Amino acid sequence: MTTTDASRPTTGRVLIRGGLVITAAEETRADVLIEDGKVAALAAQGSSAADSWTAERVIDATGRYVIPGGVDAHTHMELPFGGTFASDDFETGTRAAAWGGTTTIVDFAVQSRGGALREGLDAWHAKAEGRCAVDYAFHMILSDVNESSLKEMDLLVDEGVTSFKLFMAYPGVFYSDDGQVLRAMQRGAANGGLVMMHAENGIAIDVLVEQALARGESDPRHHGEVRKVLLEAEATHRAIQLARVAGAPLYVVHVSAEEAVAEIAAARDKGLPVFGETCPQYLFLSTDNLAEPDFEGAKYVCSTPLRPREHQAALWRGLRGNDLQVVSTDHCPFCFAGQKELGRGDFSKIPNGLPGVENRMDLLHQAVVDGHISRRRWIEIACATPARMFGLYPKKGTIAPGADADIVVYDPHTAQVLSARTHHMNVDYSAYEGRTLTGQVETVLSRGRVVLDGRQYTGSAGHGRFTPRSTCQYLD
Amino acid sequence: MTTTDASRPTTGRVLIRGGLVITAAEETRADVLIEDGKVAALAAQGSSAADSWTAERVIDATGRYVIPGGVDAHTHMELPFGGTFASDDFETGTRAAAWGGTTTIVDFAVQSRGGALREGLDAWHAKAEGRCAVDYAFHMILSDVNESSLKEMDLLVDEGVTSFKLFMAYPGVFYSDDGQVLRAMQRGAANGGLVMMHAENGIAIDVLVEQALARGESDPRHHGEVRKVLLEAEATHRAIQLARVAGAPLYVVHVSAEEAVAEIAAARDKGLPVFGETCPQYLFLSTDNLAEPDFEGAKYVCSTPLRPREHQAALWRGLRGNDLQVVSTDHCPFCFAGQKELGRGDFSKIPNGLPGVENRMDLLHQAVVDGHISRRRWIEIACATPARMFGLYPKKGTIAPGADADIVVYDPHTAQVLSARTHHMNVDYSAYEGRTLTGQVETVLSRGRVVLDGRQYTGSAGHGRFTPRSTCQYLD
Amino acid sequence: MTTTDASRPTTGRVLIRGGLVITAAEETRADVLIEDGKVAALAAQGSSAADSWTAERVIDATGRYVIPGGVDAHTHMELPFGGTFASDDFETGTRAAAWGGTTTIVDFAVQSRGGALREGLDAWHAKAEGRCAVDYAFHMILSDVNESSLKEMDLLVDEGVTSFKLFMAYPGVFYSDDGQVLRAMQRGAANGGLVMMHAENGIAIDVLVEQALARGESDPRHHGEVRKVLLEAEATHRAIQLARVAGAPLYVVHVSAEEAVAEIAAARDKGLPVFGETCPQYLFLSTDNLAEPDFEGAKYVCSTPLRPREHQAALWRGLRGNDLQVVSTDHCPFCFAGQKELGRGDFSKIPNGLPGVENRMDLLHQAVVDGHISRRRWIEIACATPARMFGLYPKKGTIAPGADADIVVYDPHTAQVLSARTHHMNVDYSAYEGRTLTGQVETVLSRGRVVLDGRQYTGSAGHGRFTPRSTCQYLD
Amino acid sequence: MTTTDASRPTTGRVLIRGGLVITAAEETRADVLIEDGKVAALAAQGSSAADSWTAERVIDATGRYVIPGGVDAHTHMELPFGGTFASDDFETGTRAAAWGGTTTIVDFAVQSRGGALREGLDAWHAKAEGRCAVDYAFHMILSDVNESSLKEMDLLVDEGVTSFKLFMAYPGVFYSDDGQVLRAMQRGAANGGLVMMHAENGIAIDVLVEQALARGESDPRHHGEVRKVLLEAEATHRAIQLARVAGAPLYVVHVSAEEAVAEIAAARDKGLPVFGETCPQYLFLSTDNLAEPDFEGAKYVCSTPLRPREHQAALWRGLRGNDLQVVSTDHCPFCFAGQKELGRGDFSKIPNGLPGVENRMDLLHQAVVDGHISRRRWIEIACATPARMFGLYPKKGTIAPGADADIVVYDPHTAQVLSARTHHMNVDYSAYEGRTLTGQVETVLSRGRVVLDGRQYTGSAGHGRFTPRSTCQYLD
Repeated sequence: MTTTDASRPTTGRVLIRGGLVITAAEETRADVLIEDGKVAALAAQGSSAADSWTAERVIDATGRYVIPGGVDAHTHMELPFGGTFASDDFETGTRAAAWGGTTTIVDFAVQSRGGALREGLDAWHAKAEGRCAVDYAFHMILSDVNESSLKEMDLLVDEGVTSFKLFMAYPGVFYSDDGQVLRAMQRGAANGGLVMMHAENGIAIDVLVEQALARGESDPRHHGEVRKVLLEAEATHRAIQLARVAGAPLYVVHVSAEEAVAEIAAARDKGLPVFGETCPQYLFLSTDNLAEPDFEGAKYVCSTPLRPREHQAALWRGLRGNDLQVVSTDHCPFCFAGQKELGRGDFSKIPNGLPGVENRMDLLHQAVVDGHISRRRWIEIACATPARMFGLYPKKGTIAPGADADIVVYDPHTAQVLSARTHHMNVDYSAYEGRTLTGQVETVLSRGRVVLDGRQYTGSAGHGRFTPRSTCQYLD
Repeated sequence: MTTTDASRPTTGRVLIRGGLVITAAEETRADVLIEDGKVAALAAQGSSAADSWTAERVIDATGRYVIPGGVDAHTHMELPFGGTFASDDFETGTRAAAWGGTTTIVDFAVQSRGGALREGLDAWHAKAEGRCAVDYAFHMILSDVNESSLKEMDLLVDEGVTSFKLFMAYPGVFYSDDGQVLRAMQRGAANGGLVMMHAENGIAIDVLVEQALARGESDPRHHGEVRKVLLEAEATHRAIQLARVAGAPLYVVHVSAEEAVAEIAAARDKGLPVFGETCPQYLFLSTDNLAEPDFEGAKYVCSTPLRPREHQAALWRGLRGNDLQVVSTDHCPFCFAGQKELGRGDFSKIPNGLPGVENRMDLLHQAVVDGHISRRRWIEIACATPARMFGLYPKKGTIAPGADADIVVYDPHTAQVLSARTHHMNVDYSAYEGRTLTGQVETVLSRGRVVLDGRQYTGSAGHGRFTPRSTCQYLD
Repeated sequence: MTTTDASRPTTGRVLIRGGLVITAAEETRADVLIEDGKVAALAAQGSSAADSWTAERVIDATGRYVIPGGVDAHTHMELPFGGTFASDDFETGTRAAAWGGTTTIVDFAVQSRGGALREGLDAWHAKAEGRCAVDYAFHMILSDVNESSLKEMDLLVDEGVTSFKLFMAYPGVFYSDDGQVLRAMQRGAANGGLVMMHAENGIAIDVLVEQALARGESDPRHHGEVRKVLLEAEATHRAIQLARVAGAPLYVVHVSAEEAVAEIAAARDKGLPVFGETCPQYLFLSTDNLAEPDFEGAKYVCSTPLRPREHQAALWRGLRGNDLQVVSTDHCPFCFAGQKELGRGDFSKIPNGLPGVENRMDLLHQAVVDGHISRRRWIEIACATPARMFGLYPKKGTIAPGADADIVVYDPHTAQVLSARTHHMNVDYSAYEGRTLTGQVETVLSRGRVVLDGRQYTGSAGHGRFTPRSTCQYLD
Repeated sequence: MTTTDASRPTTGRVLIRGGLVITAAEETRADVLIEDGKVAALAAQGSSAADSWTAERVIDATGRYVIPGGVDAHTHMELPFGGTFASDDFETGTRAAAWGGTTTIVDFAVQSRGGALREGLDAWHAKAEGRCAVDYAFHMILSDVNESSLKEMDLLVDEGVTSFKLFMAYPGVFYSDDGQVLRAMQRGAANGGLVMMHAENGIAIDVLVEQALARGESDPRHHGEVRKVLLEAEATHRAIQLARVAGAPLYVVHVSAEEAVAEIAAARDKGLPVFGETCPQYLFLSTDNLAEPDFEGAKYVCSTPLRPREHQAALWRGLRGNDLQVVSTDHCPFCFAGQKELGRGDFSKIPNGLPGVENRMDLLHQAVVDGHISRRRWIEIACATPARMFGLYPKKGTIAPGADADIVVYDPHTAQVLSARTHHMNVDYSAYEGRTLTGQVETVLSRGRVVLDGRQYTGSAGHGRFTPRSTCQYLD
């Protein structure tokens, strides 16, 4: 299967036979017929309907899962941070995504302080266009909420950029005060834009950072100690209250602490439209990693920080009970050499972020194997809900007649070992180096085009398209 | 479409074209192809796959919803209660179910005190066999938990009767004490049987009943006053704790009080496998009805009782937030004349129960119209989750390749007026007399056979089959 | 100071000089003047008022605390249980109380099943009269709630027996079902009698006991395992709900589990009149003791049972924050030899109970030393609140003009070692054998009479009087 | 009784006979002997000790309560606010306090932005010295937390100014950001200074103020609408979390909303040292007053604002259950004419504050009459706990040997009508105009000197002394 125009779907028919089709809702022994880059039909295996189908390409999925391509709603390709840039650009990052079974990313365009949203969005379009292996969309980071940027929000919603991230952390950089947060939420309540919140009390944390450094506590593990659980929980609570005042829904990014989950759960018990995302690093890593010697802990520096191991149970419980709805990666890689090393002797200078876009689907399948979640819930938190949450449904996130044929044939039995030596992300370490997982992505289709074919990469930069999004569908 | 052997599915192909297929998970513009009584395939409308299909019967669903047939997990056909019998038998009751878009009922076989489970189950098989218009299954009521009946539970699970109802109310009739409850839960934890609980503190309620009658408070409204909210909440809490001790899941039937919802929500926040069902009467009726003059309140006597109107918001919130998972009817009709009237002058002698099996799907569609729930949630609480909860998935509760072709073509726009004059249940009043609803069942298929055809009844007694169930699938 | 008639107060004046007077409310450097067995006056040390006082007996309390005599609201002298009797009678038990600084006990008279309250109360009066070293009062255990015993409750309230204990445990012995509990609470709500509750789900526990024994789990530690935390919490919750239905206050005895404290705290947050008592054994001992080898664990068998050590923090927090109000002993000693040994090979046959009436004031002073509670809180939970709770205030529980001169001169600095070799309780072991405490009772006055004089016992059987009680004053 | 040197206590003996002495802990029929301005002794009425006493002045308190003088821990005499000054100065304000049975006030010295604490404190000493009718002490308002003012905190603690108020409201005036709050709390944790918090999210409120005014909502009632309950609760939660991070206790001033009480209660259930104060205006007034026509609502403008009437029940419950510990006045009067009127046409320009120092003891006695609280709790929340909370115990807040003879003889039966025509505060309206109360202050002693004598004022400016305070004693 070849195509000269990567930006157009294949026109031929593809048939995936013999697999177990798993969506958020169903597990079905069905054959999947693809026409014009979309799912045309599903038929029971052995039915006369299924038996009558023919196609140019038939993929044998016997013994395999046939699942929707992953939707990673939180990536930062080429993000400028702390005087450097995230090491994956849209080309390397989306290729790695494809290798990992993720067929849509939603990346964060950044408003500069003093700049317009338009400028930031245009810059991100320029970075991404023609370079992506899979489809992409944008959220917008608001670094400067003011009359002008509030008005621009409406325009972005119309263009399919329907979610806006605010920071209660990083004073002087991305930070918005509670008045700015409230105004942005009010605007979102009016135009349908969903506010995404980095919920940490950055003002208080900066005091603790200064005090820790003054005491000579400069190692990476102190990053985790000063960014206290209570200050994540506090900011989460505050964001929820501000959202109530604004009459707006709220999506809290990278929830890491049990106490923050509890705030979200309490809000949801009241019937409030409050949502929470966590990330694989909070589910699989801990402060033990931050404490690794020889500055190795720097590899695990991100914010919110990794938490003591005991918090993991609350995150899994939150995912099972739908107090947390989404697992994204917050993919934001910085090489250990030359980048993470900027923070030797001062943890506050370590660029914040971890690689992960390639690993998410596999790590969450491991969670299925380990009994943390069911197979359907795996697809729900990794594909269906992020698509609904961010207005991509039903194009993305499911396998249903009419949906984009973003499909992964997944081998649930093969073992693989995660390693920087074999991964496809542009970063010199793996946060999961040496970890053995059960299950592996085998074949990946993006809008019907096979971009990974039995572990051979067949994709191309530029196949991936910008995908405008409708407003949040998770409330419907 | 005719068939001489009602117990066999139609062999021909049926095609439902042009509708909006709504399941718990998706809303899809798909055509549905039925072969041999099962869903063979779904195809995007206009796809070449869809266009190529032909069938003996083509149903035009343009402008209609195409939804799974309802699963009513709580009916009591011909139940003996208070010296009389519920007025619908399996023939009239399942026919009314079909009229109302419900294609599966799970009825309660009853163990007599001192009798064997086997006896009770055989009796219920005898009542149902050859008389049902749609498929049916059985739960078993345990009235007498002892060594012998505990052992019989295992056998029933093997036969597809995989859920067991216990009563904390009705001392001397169905009541089990906490030791019996604990033993049954332990057995269920071992054999996979799910314990369903009528959670009211019947021992305390009986004291209040006696005291009320002694004070001369004999009207139907006192039924609601003595069966206090706190005593439902208490029993709910107790059942949850006993289930924790037993290591068993728990399904609480007919939850009616905000405080009981809160107990379930608190358990679920802890990650416990606790589930709750409510019924349309608690969502649409209230103690105002119980207080209707001239003994008319007796029409609304059921247990748990109707609650003050303020509780409804908590029930809707519970349904939206999945603290309640299922809406069943607890269909248990008694005619006003001759049956409800047994309790004139003594509310405690009024047979407990309401008709509803025909109204559930429509009332819940009205909830969609009123904005209480989404369309997908309508299908989830009325079809998909009851099927999963009670081991009927994926045969029942969804429209997916391989599923039984239990399908309703639903007209979302037609208005109808509920009335005893027009309903098909064998009872002389409607609990919703005169209420106008938007939406109506138009055509119903049971295993591919059209049993209601554009509001003409085409079904027959005996088409419906006993359907053995696997154990609870909602935990997977 | 001598008196020939032990049942009458001394008529002379006693003056306690130089101490720190500690009550629940104040710490004052005051001299205390006693006339006619009562506190006549307190004056600031060095004031001309104080300096002008003279007395027949002057006690120098320099460097000592001057505190109210302890009120132990939960003792079981000579209780028949499991075929034997608690080994302290009123003579030995109240003498030991005096040695330990407790000058009032409230013991439990027992209604026999089928018997009248009157019978039980008369029997207890007969046991106690003329034998007590310090004042005493009675609660009544209701073993058989029926029309007749409900009526008798009113009479007992009039006679100063104003509290009634019910058991949700011990089916077939003391157990009342929820209907009986509700009726007794309703009666108490009407006549002012306070219901005290042994809150454990005994019906469920008996199932677990039977199952444990059937598995061959017969050691004392299994006593702790079958009487589960959840079943204490459940019963506590249920008792609270029944009290709400009855409109009655509730006093929960011997709270031992964190989860039970949480139920009480939740009730109190709602403003409900719910009170909790714990005992020194739950604060200082744990399941580690129950697991002592060679059947030694039997010494620690009581119900509610000792809990894992982690529960202690919640009990202390409850005491500090007034979610628990009282520390009593539940003094109910059985000798290891011949009594506890009845349960060798079957933990369910071990008589339930621990000695402690002599140790309570000292153990709680140790809690002051250890920083768990303040000095004033020590007096509040051990003297003032039990007196108020059970209608003995202001005669008992404080040092104020007009109060009974039940006063302890306490040496806060002396170390003592608890041991069966030196204690005065009639039991062959100490639950705290070998434990060193800081602080010791030095001198004790009962209604102005010195009954312990610098660690010399000067009391006499028969000095102690029955003290009728008013209804609960803690609600005022 | 006359004295030429108002700053010295009377040297003679005063005897108060025949009253019911009520403290936080006891109700005693005792005579009270005063020597040298202090309570020398209490003796049981009729005891030989009492009968032997003589004095230069004997006050007959038969049929009266004898209670500790009130401690009002929250007043703002002459506070500069919004371009004007609170209309009571220390002379008029403390005289009114005396009339109302309050014998100690703790007023707030103010640090100017950019100024030193020392400057502010000196200015307040200058305002108060030689002018006060009763004793006074100071808290310090921190308007500018920085390295220098943090260091000054230590010095103030040493001088007896041991509590520090911070504002999360009033950006640009008193506001501290979360980092400043955290630093001040950390300092307080080290030096024993107690942080008092005005807990409202002022940053968010200012947005809502601006939006309301832009919509033309300028009436006083909009003051209540923009200062939302949720924003008080949010700030209360945040202050608690910051205090946990700092390891510091926290005292939340003027709690007005049920949801804020809930935050405090939740913290206390965890055992955290978090305290709450409310004020009579929140207990007796509501948004109904703010909505009074003709700009009369301006009389009731204060922050936190008055709340809907439904919140009162939660405040009373909080006071009964000790989730709220103190009732102060936040006395800060502005005349309607010329002062409140500054905000005609713009509610945000209305000076914030209400008069009340004269009314508190009477209003809270009315709460006793109305059954909200007990007599002892009246004294506890109005006298004893404020004294303990702010390090004035046992000099102030109780009647015990050695305490300052700050005593009120209170007539519990007389009716009075509150009115600006008869009150002694320097303000042209009463917030309780026309309200009839039962009970009245009859005679008041300040350090043994009679300053109100049977409703005749006998005090003098300058009798009242500055009273240095120890650190918080409520934690002991």
